[in-house]
This record gives sequence, C-alpha cells and structure tokens, in this order.
Amino acid sequence: MSSDDFRTIWLKPGDAGTVQIIDQRQLPHDFVIHDLAHWSDGVEAIRDMYVRGAPLIGATAAWSLYLAALHGQFPTEEVRKAAAALLESRPTAVNLRWAIDRVMRQAQDTPADDLAGVIRRDAEAICAEDVEICLGIGRAGLPLLEAIAERKDGGAVNVLTHCNAGALATINWGTATAPIYLAHQQGLDVHVWVDETRPRNQGTQLTAWELAQNGVPHTVIVDNAGGHLMQHGEVDIVITGTDRTTRSGDVANKIGTYLKALAANDNGIPFYVALPSTTIDWTTRDGIAEIPIEERNADEVTMSYGRVGDDRCAVRTVAEGTRVGNPAFDVTPARLVTGLITERGVCAASEEGLAGLFPEEAAG
Amino acid sequence: MSSDDFRTIWLKPGDAGTVQIIDQRQLPHDFVIHDLAHWSDGVEAIRDMYVRGAPLIGATAAWSLYLAALHGQFPTEEVRKAAAALLESRPTAVNLRWAIDRVMRQAQDTPADDLAGVIRRDAEAICAEDVEICLGIGRAGLPLLEAIAERKDGGAVNVLTHCNAGALATINWGTATAPIYLAHQQGLDVHVWVDETRPRNQGTQLTAWELAQNGVPHTVIVDNAGGHLMQHGEVDIVITGTDRTTRSGDVANKIGTYLKALAANDNGIPFYVALPSTTIDWTTRDGIAEIPIEERNADEVTMSYGRVGDDRCAVRTVAEGTRVGNPAFDVTPARLVTGLITERGVCAASEEGLAGLFPEEAAG
Repeated sequence: MSSDDFRTIWLKPGDAGTVQIIDQRQLPHDFVIHDLAHWSDGVEAIRDMYVRGAPLIGATAAWSLYLAALHGQFPTEEVRKAAAALLESRPTAVNLRWAIDRVMRQAQDTPADDLAGVIRRDAEAICAEDVEICLGIGRAGLPLLEAIAERKDGGAVNVLTHCNAGALATINWGTATAPIYLAHQQGLDVHVWVDETRPRNQGTQLTAWELAQNGVPHTVIVDNAGGHLMQHGEVDIVITGTDRTTRSGDVANKIGTYLKALAANDNGIPFYVALPSTTIDWTTRDGIAEIPIEERNADEVTMSYGRVGDDRCAVRTVAEGTRVGNPAFDVTPARLVTGLITERGVCAASEEGLAGLFPEEAAG
Repeated sequence: MSSDDFRTIWLKPGDAGTVQIIDQRQLPHDFVIHDLAHWSDGVEAIRDMYVRGAPLIGATAAWSLYLAALHGQFPTEEVRKAAAALLESRPTAVNLRWAIDRVMRQAQDTPADDLAGVIRRDAEAICAEDVEICLGIGRAGLPLLEAIAERKDGGAVNVLTHCNAGALATINWGTATAPIYLAHQQGLDVHVWVDETRPRNQGTQLTAWELAQNGVPHTVIVDNAGGHLMQHGEVDIVITGTDRTTRSGDVANKIGTYLKALAANDNGIPFYVALPSTTIDWTTRDGIAEIPIEERNADEVTMSYGRVGDDRCAVRTVAEGTRVGNPAFDVTPARLVTGLITERGVCAASEEGLAGLFPEEAAG
C-alpha cells in the first residue's frame, strides 16, 4: 500500500470525469472504492465521513470543485455553488476552508473554458504537496526509531499510537505513521500498539487496517491498556498526530491522547507528535484554555458498529435514556510532549522550538 | 434499589430450595431474575458471569454449597463434589476460595441431616457481613463527599468512577459506590461520571444501570474522556474499587485505572480507592513487579455486545486475524493514591496507613 504510488483519492483510470476514493466507513471489513461523479458526491463523502482526516478532506473538496467546473453548464457559477456547499459539509474542518480558499483564489478570473484544467492542476498540486509533507515528517521521524532499534540491538521497536494519523487521513504515508512506514521499508523491526480509540474506533477500523495492508506488525489494544504496557517496558515510543498545535507546543488531538502522554511521562518513555506545519495555530498559546473542544453526538458512544456475518450492523451498548458526554478531543500540554515531528525536522514542543523551524510564521 | 433491603442474591420467597440472582449479562437492557435450583446452576452462574465481583462470587459459592447439602441424596459427599466444581469455575477469584474454605471448615463434622441448616446460616452470615463491610466503607467515605459539597456550596459533587465496584459486585451498596449512595440518601447533590470501561463495558452495563435504579444522576463517558474533564474542573474526586491491594498501598484494579490516577494527580484531584480489607494482600509489597496480570480472551476486544431492537447481538469491530492484546488489570502505584477507604476508616495508601487500621494483619 504506502508504496510511492498509493493514494487515498485519485482520478478514475480512463475517465477523467470521475474521482475515486476509498469508502473508509466500510473498513476494516470491506475495501470499497467509491466514485465521485458529481461535486455533490464530494459533499456527501465529506459530510458522511466516507473520508476524514484534515488533508484528505481538503483534497476531496479541491477535487469536488474540479468536478463542478468540468460538468457544470455554467462552470464559474457551478464552482461557486459547490464551494458554498462544501464549506458547510464539515464546519469545523480547518483544512476544508483552506483548500477551498486556495482553489477559489487560483481560479479567480479564469475563463470558464479553462476552469476545469486550472482547478485540476491545483487539486493535483494539493495532493502532491501533502505527499511531500508527509514524507518530510517520515524522514524527520525515522532517526528516532533507528536510534531505538540500535539501542535495542535487534529487538523490535514498539511504537504506541492513538487514533488514525495514517495514510488514510492524508493522501499517502500519513503523519504519525510516516516514520513507521519508512522504518519498515528499511527493514527495521517495528511493531505498533494500536489504541482502539473509542468512541469511533479509528484505531481498529483504520490504523490496524492500513498497517496490515503494509505488512507492519501490530497489536490492537483497548485505550485503557497503554499505561500498563508502558509500566512493563512494552512501549519504546509514542507517536500520535494532532488536529491543532498552539505556538507554545500544546497539542489538541483525539480524546485520550492526554492520558497516554501522562503515562509516557510517568514511565520515562518519549512522547512525540507528528504534524504538518499547517496544523500549527500561531494565534493561540494556551491550548487548554483557548482551544474549544467539540462535543459530538451521543450515538458515537451508545452504538457500536461492526459486522455480523456479512452484514454491517449497529448494536446499542448503553441503555436508552442514559445521559452521555462525548468530548471529541483533548489537549496535551507541551510539558508532556518530548518533541514535535514536522516536515522541516524535529523540534522541542515550545515557542522557541517551533520558531526555530518556522521563523517566518512565528514572526508573522 | 440500594435501600436496606436490596440484595444481589437471595432465597426465593416461599421456596427455600431455590436461590435467586440477577442475570447481570442481560443488563442494562433487561432485568432478569435467574433461579439456582441445583448447585451446578451456581457453577454455571459464576463461570458464565451471570454474577461477577469478588464478594458476590463468594456468596454465590456459599449458597451453591447450601443447595448441594439441601438437595443431595448424600449431603456430605454432594457438598464436597460441589466445592471442587465451584473452585474451578473462576480459578483466579480469591474470594471464591475464601468462601468455600470458610463454609467447608464450618460444615466439618456436621451430621448430614444438619448440613443444609449450618451452611445456610453461614451463607446468610457471609452476606450480612459483606453488607456491613460495604456500609462501613460508605460511612468512612461519606465525609469526603460532604467536605467537597460544603466547599462547593451547593454545587454538585462530581465523582468519576471506573468499572463496577457497585452494589452489583457485592451483596448491596458496593465499595466505591457506597459513599455515593449514602451521600445521595442524605440529599447531597452527587453526580457520577461513569467510565464505559472497555473491553467489557462494566461501566455502561452495570454501574450506569445501578446508579439509574437508585436515582443517582450520572453521565456515561468513554474511558478516553476522563483526563479532559479533569483538566476542565469537571471532576471533584475519583473513587474506584480494587481487586488486590499490596501492603504498601499499590492497587490492582480494572485496566485503565492507572491512567485515571495519573490524570487526577496531574490536576490536583483526590484519587481514592474503596476496599474491603479482605482484598489486602499482606504478602506483596511492589504491585507492579509482583502482581501477575491476567491476559483475557481477544473476543472481549473484537466483539461488541449490545441490542438491536429487542434482540441481543454481538458485532465484530476488529478485522478477523488481527492480533489483540487484552490485559485485564493494571496496577496504580501508592504514590498516586490519595487514600484508601476501608470498612475501618480512611487511611494513607502506605504500609503505615494500612498498619494503623489493621495492626493485627500487618503484624501477622
């Protein structure tokens, strides 16, 4: 899979009028390719979470705008209509707005006849840039795993990860997984502890699936288990992704990340966060005080989705009428983060660390 | 429910030849009373987890021996046969052996005709003593909640708990829940955050159910959420149970307890463990090094049990063939435990603390 040519979104071979994605809702049980024939299919794919992960959401929006330009009778109007609908599809996704704004800026003043071509090139560029960013993160993080492998002298390098910051969240390689895939390709003996990641189970549904596709040894555990494994020397390093990083290095990521950072800290295990620099929010400093945490639907907690034989099925695990809390993210303070792995290298989780790698942004 | 007359095991009204229990596997969706007509029904109830929780397992064994004595053609032999089978029903349950040994010692040299009567009195005594112990824990822990209520001046006291150390695990009142029930009865405004407790979901299945029965306000959350709530001042105190406590105050409890203790510590929130003194293992000192942790079946992680309409159903959430790790318990070191709530009072989680309350045991 995460060989150089794997993609999570692509033009249908032999049909440049259709974009294809993986219907990630069907994983890990079925690998289903889904056609986006019209821009509204892209809205549906984002809204109903056929695709998720900031970079892939952005790319899906860009490709949907291409479909609008290509198939619209009045391309300029159709693109504008599509952009408005796409913006509403996942209101809190930062990359969605970023990608739409970029494409619309690029397409501005383009004659209707050239619009599809211009937007296609931009969508391709967005994807290519994301692949480069993820590879950059991979190259930056690889030495961390190599150093552990050397110290362990042939023993497996045990990485723990939470949620899915993998190839499926991006165009290829992923963020937290990029160093793992590069290490595996180089023949390092890497083993990954995959947190189930309740309530949506992105660990078992997505991360375990893509690690299996790539032949990376891994073991699924419940979110409760990581601390115990760390106490017993079974984890060498933790690498997670992040949805938003403050300029001081606080990290907002999937709910439960903070608990793993505490356990890593308590056991002297390095805790790294992999991120494209686009997720750094240079306007915030104190993550816990400033980052609003989305409260999501109770159904995510009360219903479990899976398979019975060949059928997909949801079972209710919580009694009807029970009150449920479902915060989607938590903030890990910078003091618990050993380092940030970015496309420009690894730095301390601090204002100085980030400013050292991104001086132009820090000053801006 | 946890009024004075609630019980998790009792003689069937009007039929002293049948013992009744709640089939806890059906909770929270259905309340089903299950008859134990023969001692082998007791073996099944323990083995197949109709009942769980150390005190209730012990009591079920004692009542099963009563059934053996009552219905056996040769009571003495039947009781011996039943004792051997019961011992095998949950090999790692410490209370199971304790209850069986106690009854067998008591019944020793009793003429066959008197056996059922003697064992019945002992089973009743075991239950009555457990109720007293839990009430003792409740009375010892109550002032902790009262102090928080006073400080908050009318605001709700928010307790977080993990797994089920409730009435359903004991005969009545529970251990971690006993202070909560007493506080609620006294009119204190108590609200409980109920950890789902993957993989077996004892929080949603059992704790939420019994809190609802008792009218105690509560909110179900995934295990990942507790740290975030603590960061935002939503938790005033954590109270959990324990399966085994070392003489130095280390606490082995359901997997994930350690992560909540870390989060409580990081946020200056008191973390208490409620326990009957019978769970103190005076022969161990270093919990992490000395307490073996049971690795349980992968099915607990890969399958989710719940309801579809009126049917019980299990769905597979993890792809076939995926490697799974499932450690059932973890150890929280004494340094993270604010105090131990026992039937004799609250003490520090330390050798000195425990020896102060239980000098006869500590010296032994």
